[in-house]
Amino acid sequence: MTTEAVKAALSRQEIELPSWAFGNSGTRFKVFSQPGVPRSPEEKIADAAVVHKYTGVAPSVALHIPWDKVDDYAALAAYAKEQGVRLGAINSNVFQDDDYKLGSVTNPDPAVRRKATDHLLECVDIMDATGSRDLKLWFSDGTNYPGQDDIQDRQDRLATALKEVYDRLGDDQRMLLEYKLFEPAFYTTDVPDWGTSYAHCLELGPKATVCIDTGHHAPGTNIEFIVAFLLRTKKLGAFDFNSRFYADDDLMVGAADPFQLFRIMNEIVRGDALDPDRGIAFMLDQCHNIEEKIPAIIRSVMNVQEATAKALLVDRDVLRAAQQSGDVLGANAALMDAYNTDVRPLLAELRESQGLDADPVAAYRRSGYFEQITKDRADGQQAGWGA
Amino acid sequence: MTTEAVKAALSRQEIELPSWAFGNSGTRFKVFSQPGVPRSPEEKIADAAVVHKYTGVAPSVALHIPWDKVDDYAALAAYAKEQGVRLGAINSNVFQDDDYKLGSVTNPDPAVRRKATDHLLECVDIMDATGSRDLKLWFSDGTNYPGQDDIQDRQDRLATALKEVYDRLGDDQRMLLEYKLFEPAFYTTDVPDWGTSYAHCLELGPKATVCIDTGHHAPGTNIEFIVAFLLRTKKLGAFDFNSRFYADDDLMVGAADPFQLFRIMNEIVRGDALDPDRGIAFMLDQCHNIEEKIPAIIRSVMNVQEATAKALLVDRDVLRAAQQSGDVLGANAALMDAYNTDVRPLLAELRESQGLDADPVAAYRRSGYFEQITKDRADGQQAGWGA
Amino acid sequence: MTTEAVKAALSRQEIELPSWAFGNSGTRFKVFSQPGVPRSPEEKIADAAVVHKYTGVAPSVALHIPWDKVDDYAALAAYAKEQGVRLGAINSNVFQDDDYKLGSVTNPDPAVRRKATDHLLECVDIMDATGSRDLKLWFSDGTNYPGQDDIQDRQDRLATALKEVYDRLGDDQRMLLEYKLFEPAFYTTDVPDWGTSYAHCLELGPKATVCIDTGHHAPGTNIEFIVAFLLRTKKLGAFDFNSRFYADDDLMVGAADPFQLFRIMNEIVRGDALDPDRGIAFMLDQCHNIEEKIPAIIRSVMNVQEATAKALLVDRDVLRAAQQSGDVLGANAALMDAYNTDVRPLLAELRESQGLDADPVAAYRRSGYFEQITKDRADGQQAGWGA
Amino acid sequence: MTTEAVKAALSRQEIELPSWAFGNSGTRFKVFSQPGVPRSPEEKIADAAVVHKYTGVAPSVALHIPWDKVDDYAALAAYAKEQGVRLGAINSNVFQDDDYKLGSVTNPDPAVRRKATDHLLECVDIMDATGSRDLKLWFSDGTNYPGQDDIQDRQDRLATALKEVYDRLGDDQRMLLEYKLFEPAFYTTDVPDWGTSYAHCLELGPKATVCIDTGHHAPGTNIEFIVAFLLRTKKLGAFDFNSRFYADDDLMVGAADPFQLFRIMNEIVRGDALDPDRGIAFMLDQCHNIEEKIPAIIRSVMNVQEATAKALLVDRDVLRAAQQSGDVLGANAALMDAYNTDVRPLLAELRESQGLDADPVAAYRRSGYFEQITKDRADGQQAGWGA
Repeated sequence: MTTEAVKAALSRQEIELPSWAFGNSGTRFKVFSQPGVPRSPEEKIADAAVVHKYTGVAPSVALHIPWDKVDDYAALAAYAKEQGVRLGAINSNVFQDDDYKLGSVTNPDPAVRRKATDHLLECVDIMDATGSRDLKLWFSDGTNYPGQDDIQDRQDRLATALKEVYDRLGDDQRMLLEYKLFEPAFYTTDVPDWGTSYAHCLELGPKATVCIDTGHHAPGTNIEFIVAFLLRTKKLGAFDFNSRFYADDDLMVGAADPFQLFRIMNEIVRGDALDPDRGIAFMLDQCHNIEEKIPAIIRSVMNVQEATAKALLVDRDVLRAAQQSGDVLGANAALMDAYNTDVRPLLAELRESQGLDADPVAAYRRSGYFEQITKDRADGQQAGWGA
Repeated sequence: MTTEAVKAALSRQEIELPSWAFGNSGTRFKVFSQPGVPRSPEEKIADAAVVHKYTGVAPSVALHIPWDKVDDYAALAAYAKEQGVRLGAINSNVFQDDDYKLGSVTNPDPAVRRKATDHLLECVDIMDATGSRDLKLWFSDGTNYPGQDDIQDRQDRLATALKEVYDRLGDDQRMLLEYKLFEPAFYTTDVPDWGTSYAHCLELGPKATVCIDTGHHAPGTNIEFIVAFLLRTKKLGAFDFNSRFYADDDLMVGAADPFQLFRIMNEIVRGDALDPDRGIAFMLDQCHNIEEKIPAIIRSVMNVQEATAKALLVDRDVLRAAQQSGDVLGANAALMDAYNTDVRPLLAELRESQGLDADPVAAYRRSGYFEQITKDRADGQQAGWGA
Repeated sequence: MTTEAVKAALSRQEIELPSWAFGNSGTRFKVFSQPGVPRSPEEKIADAAVVHKYTGVAPSVALHIPWDKVDDYAALAAYAKEQGVRLGAINSNVFQDDDYKLGSVTNPDPAVRRKATDHLLECVDIMDATGSRDLKLWFSDGTNYPGQDDIQDRQDRLATALKEVYDRLGDDQRMLLEYKLFEPAFYTTDVPDWGTSYAHCLELGPKATVCIDTGHHAPGTNIEFIVAFLLRTKKLGAFDFNSRFYADDDLMVGAADPFQLFRIMNEIVRGDALDPDRGIAFMLDQCHNIEEKIPAIIRSVMNVQEATAKALLVDRDVLRAAQQSGDVLGANAALMDAYNTDVRPLLAELRESQGLDADPVAAYRRSGYFEQITKDRADGQQAGWGA
Repeated sequence: MTTEAVKAALSRQEIELPSWAFGNSGTRFKVFSQPGVPRSPEEKIADAAVVHKYTGVAPSVALHIPWDKVDDYAALAAYAKEQGVRLGAINSNVFQDDDYKLGSVTNPDPAVRRKATDHLLECVDIMDATGSRDLKLWFSDGTNYPGQDDIQDRQDRLATALKEVYDRLGDDQRMLLEYKLFEPAFYTTDVPDWGTSYAHCLELGPKATVCIDTGHHAPGTNIEFIVAFLLRTKKLGAFDFNSRFYADDDLMVGAADPFQLFRIMNEIVRGDALDPDRGIAFMLDQCHNIEEKIPAIIRSVMNVQEATAKALLVDRDVLRAAQQSGDVLGANAALMDAYNTDVRPLLAELRESQGLDADPVAAYRRSGYFEQITKDRADGQQAGWGA
């Protein structure tokens, strides 16, 4: 691919930001609050718009319901548009109500299941109002102790709820089903791996696809294999990007294993799935527990861009020829040549050609935005995972 | 379940033995040979028959082709019958030929793929001759280095080969598709997890089912969840039992985590899948690198029996009631009550009621069989993974 | 060991309870509150005393400072005595202050280090007042991102703080240094493994010993090896018992892997380290996120007792003989014979001989205690990890 | 550091090659042989010399006894010198004799322990003859089943053997004690982690130091932390470099996680431990199962060079300032700036300034060496792990 083609592909890339990454987050041991943190969905959107302003590739913001509940979603969508961004996926939350202690849609109690399913249906209503295409479902449902509940029954309950929600989706709406190995459930999780998500999506139909959160796997799992497999079967719907050294650490994407991120993006490019038209949503889902949130998100966006640029630079002809001839070292070298390239100058050029600053973090720091929000948002209740 | 019902269920249980577990095995560092090791398929079958003689629940022997290649499979089947056992699953081997260095059915070279697929078809021919129901497929295929080969292409090649073999199966024949996280491939494995196996089996049709090897998962994987999921979707075909602390250690089943084995058998009992009529094949697949092979296999069979007995003893009414009412501790206690029971007396009674010795290992040791084979088999080439 | 000797050993066993296990706990996603949860250190002690009342082997309660801060520790000790228990280890907490965002004793800021060290010294003051022998130190200190801080510098700072605290210890006081692989730090942790703890303890001197939390290891770590190694070098000071399937799940001890707990207790018995006189503190450190707390703790105590009873039942002569003669299967069988024994009848007898109910959980449930505290503690602020 | 200073440091770097990496290797499933593989220690040394010829930084070759046993080690050393390299560390092998089935220096049988210790002493004799400084000890010793042997006894036996060997070392000789989590032992390993190695080395004295094999850790282990810790305590003696995605995969160093390799080298540079004078031995220990061996080793050497160059490029002042001020993102960015730099041009320049080809792999391929050895070594017994 020529440098110009690489730049063209990069200029069409879109990365969705999660509203909740701008609020406070932490571990079970402590949530450290930060100055300037948003107090409302609008302020989260404003911060996301700042990230888009300096990077040019983050034009949409995912919402989390009920954390981002508002009375008037059309007004919220209009506000987003004014800020230069749009509303993206709707993320349901059926894990923070006391009723959900033993599960939401898989709870042994039918009344709790009803309540949880109703919340999911409500999220589709919100999608109608916001014009969102994607409903992202993550279930913390599971059990902590062997015997606690019946694994097969819980699958039946899950299938029932998913079906009801799936049937409610409009023609242009989709369901993204996320999986996670563990946490907060510590023995079984009802959607623990891509296979489970895939099987349910297959049963549901074409509007249901798998969402890969890069931090939700067992140690040693080859994520790019899953990407390739789901692309081949047309069941990859979205990414929740972040990185980790241990479990679901939710660090900045690309921070723990930049080579893995490159390998993932390499499968995306190989499968011709980068362009927004191909329907894969590339979303961040991170926690900035100790680092400044807005520049951390800018940096994360840049990390995805850099991995993408490297993936685009892979010489596909050379790679393919080496693979076909069984040249193990040659094929590996073809991939590594791209990975070892410093793509920062290329991205700087691209940004400048788009009227952006070559260095988005530096531009943000110079802007005075942080000082402004620190002052403006000194009072009130900061947004966090519970608000 | 009454004690009598438990005994009745246990008396119908069947555990298949792998011919290769009687041969020498080891690690890449060293294969330690043992006295009395079989030198031919017939001697492996004779050893397996001894295990059945003392346990009463191991009436069939799985073969590994080409390790157990003979000129006359009908004669081999007749020999097995004389010994008191029958021939079981046919295991293909497409990983020990120099041609398979870069893969067998997924090799970039079409000639190698052809050769590998032909071997699989030959295995079906052998099944016709032996009367075996199951073709067990394990592919070591994969890559060691990022970029080495194209992941999606390899899936296409895999699907093609599987389809050809599937179409060759007779009406009463099945394909069992095994998965494994890694080893001997160290970057990608072409069938790395149950999801991949499941997806291919689903595409192939009802005669293709998943084989779970208990040592083939990423750390932290909840195997009983997979069992429950596959039972629910009618895609569980077989187990390869063994145990591990680390990777694919291939220790005696139940040795590393007896509680996990119990939880697995608990899902089997819960799903009413224990009886041989239900079509799940319970096979051992182990390596006795440093311990005496025949008593190790007897012990392994007993471990499976004990785990099964405990699973049968779970009070399903009490368990279900606690689960339904959200009584976490009560439900866990219902399961643990069964696990904490010493079922060895019950199994001793069962054996004696069947005319067997209460202690199979002791009976074997008293029999003089080991001394006999040590003498008889002093010469010749011992069987191992390569023979 | 005769049954009587086993009972005698069990009757001298002591398991320390953590005050904080009686308060609410949860994950970063949600803390579910429970009825009847204590609102003060005194109420936690009262609950702990109830566990001791029904089990007879839990005579002490560990405190967590500042969660259990009171004005008059002598009065608290007197209150504990009235309840039938005593105050145990003092656990420091240098992870919940905003100042500790980038570390406590390893923070790059000397002022924060001073503050943290002062807190540790204050904990020794409290020990003087409570008569506690053990200061348990767990540091959440670490970093989330490569480069964030200098690993060696942080070790120097850690050593400095530990030295200052060590020098402050009285003649009959000890320091227990706990380690943890990760969480809440997600890149480096300053005391990540037993080796780091051991090295610091060795440098400090005889009053510093290692505390093993059974949930704080990398996947695959052989904990009983660490136990054996530290016993051999006289550097094992204490256990924080709990269990896990994945990371630091903090489930009831023995719930996830009862065989592992048995293997750990087997090393304790083998090393003659069970008796309280030997100076090893056996403490629980768990989170009862979804199950009822008091019966969960009773159950946990019973799980430790059962594992201990099995370990005591190992026939050491048979085991040793098999080991010495290289009889792999015989040695394993000697261990498994004990593990497979149902020790619940033996423990029931022991309890009855001590005037306790044979079934502690049932006795607790019949007592009406839960109904009483649910009523009495309906108002006020429930204790949790933050209070 | 200026570019010139970086180049100067790189020009002094030394990477030791393992003789056995040039021989055939594989997994327990299959060893694939390759054309041109050496048939003698001399041919291995010749191949190693070729790697040095094209890279300029691999001047020494480690031997493995008995694989590299010769009658006249002085002659072998002279041969090496003629080829342009020198003999390096002596690696003992006490895992391939039938006697070692249950262990070598920790075997329950004293006669086996004597034999194993004698082999280690013989290795020191060989060091005297070769002039080698380092004795590298890796023990496969361990157990496969709980109860198989006594953990503490085995530590005692280990300590006894190490002491005897340590006392035999000359003034300028050292012992490098390697650790490994598992394989070939699958339950306990007698030196499973750095803590165990460290503790023994500390007890032995200053001539005993820890050897870190980068593939020998539990999942999630932070290797650079261990590097930093051992540098701080002056107990880091050597590296065995390789890489892995799963277990001890023994892939080319830097292939699986180049960022980890960079982080390791960053600690080396930070600790001023790169220069050969500092006494840390940087050795490769890899298996080239499916890729061509000589170019794979050249590539591995280059990977270490590239990681080193990046580590040298870290702006220590900027990094330190960010760390000191608690600037998490700034400190991480300082590290990542160096990592993201393409250092291949710098290394190409360095090579050309040294009279080497800028592209060592291409130069090797053009040389005709492979064609020559393929022809010359067509007959005879190829070297492998058993020869």
